[in-house]
Amino acid sequence: MSLIVQKYGGTSVADLERIRNVADRVAQSYDAGNNVVVVISAMAGTTDNLIDMAARINARPVKRELDVLLATGEQTTAALLAITLNSMNYPAQSLMGHQAQVRTDCDYGNARILDISTTRIEKLVNSRIIVVIAGFQGCDSAGNITTLGRGGSDTSAVAIAAAIKADLCEIYTDVDGIYTADPNVCPRARKLDRISYDEMLNMSSLGAKVLQIRSVGFAKKYNVPVHVRSSFKLEEGTMVVNEDNGMERLFVTSVTHDKNQARITLKKVPDQPGVAAKIFTPIADAGIIVDMIIQNTRAGGQTDLTFTVPEADYEKAIAIQKKVAEEIGADKVYGARNIAKVSVIGVGMRNHSGVASIMFNTLAKENINISMISTSEIRISCIIEEKYTELAVQVLHTAFGLDVER
Amino acid sequence: MSLIVQKYGGTSVADLERIRNVADRVAQSYDAGNNVVVVISAMAGTTDNLIDMAARINARPVKRELDVLLATGEQTTAALLAITLNSMNYPAQSLMGHQAQVRTDCDYGNARILDISTTRIEKLVNSRIIVVIAGFQGCDSAGNITTLGRGGSDTSAVAIAAAIKADLCEIYTDVDGIYTADPNVCPRARKLDRISYDEMLNMSSLGAKVLQIRSVGFAKKYNVPVHVRSSFKLEEGTMVVNEDNGMERLFVTSVTHDKNQARITLKKVPDQPGVAAKIFTPIADAGIIVDMIIQNTRAGGQTDLTFTVPEADYEKAIAIQKKVAEEIGADKVYGARNIAKVSVIGVGMRNHSGVASIMFNTLAKENINISMISTSEIRISCIIEEKYTELAVQVLHTAFGLDVER
Repeated sequence: MSLIVQKYGGTSVADLERIRNVADRVAQSYDAGNNVVVVISAMAGTTDNLIDMAARINARPVKRELDVLLATGEQTTAALLAITLNSMNYPAQSLMGHQAQVRTDCDYGNARILDISTTRIEKLVNSRIIVVIAGFQGCDSAGNITTLGRGGSDTSAVAIAAAIKADLCEIYTDVDGIYTADPNVCPRARKLDRISYDEMLNMSSLGAKVLQIRSVGFAKKYNVPVHVRSSFKLEEGTMVVNEDNGMERLFVTSVTHDKNQARITLKKVPDQPGVAAKIFTPIADAGIIVDMIIQNTRAGGQTDLTFTVPEADYEKAIAIQKKVAEEIGADKVYGARNIAKVSVIGVGMRNHSGVASIMFNTLAKENINISMISTSEIRISCIIEEKYTELAVQVLHTAFGLDVER
Repeated sequence: MSLIVQKYGGTSVADLERIRNVADRVAQSYDAGNNVVVVISAMAGTTDNLIDMAARINARPVKRELDVLLATGEQTTAALLAITLNSMNYPAQSLMGHQAQVRTDCDYGNARILDISTTRIEKLVNSRIIVVIAGFQGCDSAGNITTLGRGGSDTSAVAIAAAIKADLCEIYTDVDGIYTADPNVCPRARKLDRISYDEMLNMSSLGAKVLQIRSVGFAKKYNVPVHVRSSFKLEEGTMVVNEDNGMERLFVTSVTHDKNQARITLKKVPDQPGVAAKIFTPIADAGIIVDMIIQNTRAGGQTDLTFTVPEADYEKAIAIQKKVAEEIGADKVYGARNIAKVSVIGVGMRNHSGVASIMFNTLAKENINISMISTSEIRISCIIEEKYTELAVQVLHTAFGLDVER
């Protein structure tokens, strides 16, 4: 008998029929003798509809009240699932964030979980009651309703699993698991049986579609084994675990890509102390996240500085940099939106030199120019022209031996 | 400066435009210097839609979870109103039932308010914050979400007004106030400026459409002045108050009618001890509410027994009584659905004899036969044939001097 947390996303509970499907899966696990705690999202589309409704009142609705509004989404599905389970004669009880004692800070719309008092959940679990917890929500110390931000139900699930010392946290979603590359781009991509927390954390672009990055950090910190799997199929998905747990020993595990990038260059920046701060402080103040930065030293105490931002923030960033360039006396500002980031990721590369050179050679062979490079301990990323994205992913996937055998 | 509780019903918050209208009215009262606590219902239709959704899962959904589901309706409107008020630069904060500390028993779906701890509401009010409370909901001592049953927001409003010692409880609805008769039936009906709690309590059929009866009992018990008025017009409505407060001195205040009645007769019932219990216990066990009962003694130790039930329960009641008749040896069971109850109500009749005779003579003059009569201290009700309902209301309205001058 295990204690299992099961999290179901919005597409898994999109209508009553799918909620019934979820109830069947929960019941199956319960019948197998497990104690089951379910964490549930709002029906697909509900959160966006509620945000739109608030936006029709005010473009920037007061955050405390927006959270009260959004919290109804998970409350609805939690109640519906509990009703369904009870109608199937399974004992089930819903708990809202405040009832499950998910205490957060008071950063409405993006609250962080501070602690979870497990007495109420454990009392129910010990009575063999299926606990259905509304994900995405908590409450601050004053009892105000808070939400955890986009994808917050994943974080709820992993945090609750950590708090109640669950044996496993299952994330049910609309994909089968984690793949070596996006199967839409790379037909030879294959599903991984296991992947490490660190690799997931480095797969932000591909991985975030499957599992919210913040929840992976939580899982790593508290060593919660996470099983990402489909709510529509019975096959096993991908286990996200500590890398010691008998991981496949590939030196590269996956190839990811991200087309939502744009590049900005400041030409002939005076190479003086404090210049970088002048460039990046206004960008940070505007809430724009800079990903990669490179700097080429020129002759004559000048450098060219290039960085990437999310494509959605491109216009805003260009406008800011035009002002900055005038202030600091840079020559000119220009940029490009038609770029993409391609990355190879794997904990194995830590002990293998040569991953970078295989990557660069593979791209060079296809005449794909690399305009920027960044690396972490287990990841190498290159900025290339957007039109080469699919080709780059495919040839790298083959070069690193990831192709599925067919 | 007064402390005012304003309650807005489902039609008053049916869409964002109407919620904006509510916000304007709240702001107006706030600008006049009042401290305002708003109690709000779900958007018209929402509660029924949620009940339907649950019914599609199970005809009898588990009550605890149905309450969790239904509570989302008021949560949504409370958040939307708070967003609207904030966007108009009025400080407003929503509170759910559990946050407003509306503590109830645990009779899900029909919970009764036990007490309201006012510290949180008062703290906000004292900071000149408009408090928007989700009506219809509370929580039991274990922290479970409960709802108060149909029309429960009225009860929430009056109970909160009593708890915080508000100067006034305004019930905003889709009618102008309380009328001397239903204006659809009696074109000469006029709006009352004032009516007593007791008269409202006796007006169940007409009054319940305007103000939930349970809330009137609450208002009477705690002596909360209630102002029933339109949320779409600015004119004053009807004050529901203690009868000492300068009430109009009419001996009859209103004429009401109720067509949703049916009559059941048991013929030749043996006149023995315990027979009444045998007749009415199974009716009560089936949750059917008996309104009027009359008994005619016959010769030979037998009586005829007639009683009325809500029309919706007629078939069920007939089936029960056929079994009972066999058991107790009554001659036969028959009934009628085409009946109506017409009542005259007024605290003044306590000190006036002759109301009954005016009523009976007035109906007799129109050849309307009275099949049953019941009375309370301030009400006389007659059962008549349904087809005479409109005529009876009109002639009684005139006979008791209630016609508006035109």
